[in-house]
Amino acid sequence: MSLKDTLNWRYATKRMNGNKVPQEKIDNILEAIRLAPTSFGLQPFKVIVIENPELREKIFNEACQQPQVKEGSHILVFAANKKVSAEQIDEYMQLIAETRSIPVESLNDFKAMFGGIVAGTAEQNFVWTARQAYLAFGVGIVAAANEKVDATPMEGFNPAALDAILGLSEQNLSSTTILALGYRDEANDYLATAAKVRKSNNSLFDFK
Amino acid sequence: MSLKDTLNWRYATKRMNGNKVPQEKIDNILEAIRLAPTSFGLQPFKVIVIENPELREKIFNEACQQPQVKEGSHILVFAANKKVSAEQIDEYMQLIAETRSIPVESLNDFKAMFGGIVAGTAEQNFVWTARQAYLAFGVGIVAAANEKVDATPMEGFNPAALDAILGLSEQNLSSTTILALGYRDEANDYLATAAKVRKSNNSLFDFK
Repeated sequence: MSLKDTLNWRYATKRMNGNKVPQEKIDNILEAIRLAPTSFGLQPFKVIVIENPELREKIFNEACQQPQVKEGSHILVFAANKKVSAEQIDEYMQLIAETRSIPVESLNDFKAMFGGIVAGTAEQNFVWTARQAYLAFGVGIVAAANEKVDATPMEGFNPAALDAILGLSEQNLSSTTILALGYRDEANDYLATAAKVRKSNNSLFDFK
Repeated sequence: MSLKDTLNWRYATKRMNGNKVPQEKIDNILEAIRLAPTSFGLQPFKVIVIENPELREKIFNEACQQPQVKEGSHILVFAANKKVSAEQIDEYMQLIAETRSIPVESLNDFKAMFGGIVAGTAEQNFVWTARQAYLAFGVGIVAAANEKVDATPMEGFNPAALDAILGLSEQNLSSTTILALGYRDEANDYLATAAKVRKSNNSLFDFK
């Protein structure tokens, strides 16, 4: 199936049938998210992968009671770093040095490029880290469709409440978006057969 | 090729060889971006597709003189809406009504959900519209790799200068990110053979 067909197959599933997504498919979706590019390669976020029903019940109540939180089998919470720290940059330099078998000192020029980010406010940092999380979120959405797994991207939740449920603040993280994973319940989902609404090429693109 | 292999094949190409990406491949990449999901389906951004060499020369000078801007054959500028307007929501309702052949009045409850966004400040709006642009950017990056087209995601540019070059402000848009498209110059690109650096599963994911 072409990527175009895959993206036409997917839609923001409103009702799911409770069937469980096999672990192999979850692993493939997560691997795509892990391989997603981010600015400077920093990956300034975590993805919380939640299967636990009690936890999903709590999240359901802070996510406008959207049924997919419970009718799916997994939800992914994309949580971005609230502040980028000098320690985090040091850890990243160490990871590069180890992965590429090069001395960490050889990365000093690259490391200096993070100076402005580390000096930024938490608010500025979070604008930027959340964008990186959304990039990976986009890759995850394609990966789910590629596995023929239905997925619902969700912004309709109380981030502060979700952060509290998952203990994210203490980890320098705040939730930005959710991806519910499962299988569509076509009989009960009015959107399953609705035409996809998208801007025309002329509205969305400007050719120069 | 599996999505995992496709994502391992891609990298942030530093040098390109000047070869032109065929129109069919550009069309497929743009179609994936057009089909990318966004919050409420609003698609609050435009993508400027630039092939013109003089325009790319100007952008090159405002983008830290990164060679891919000129060595690629196309660059995509993802520009998000600075403010979400009531008129924009009305246009979107009209688009849904026409696409699905339903009366626009039947969308009144859905339309009301945009109230908080339209009432938000330009700053709040842009945080949100830029996230949607990044989601589509992620989809575009996967689509390019799927076409075996090299792509460089770029944040290293002067957004105000880029907005001025492209006349974006007058269109209620501001640039968020660039994707240069072309073909890798392996002989001159030190990154072409470097190991990909990514966090481990244990660092990036938290399983609950």
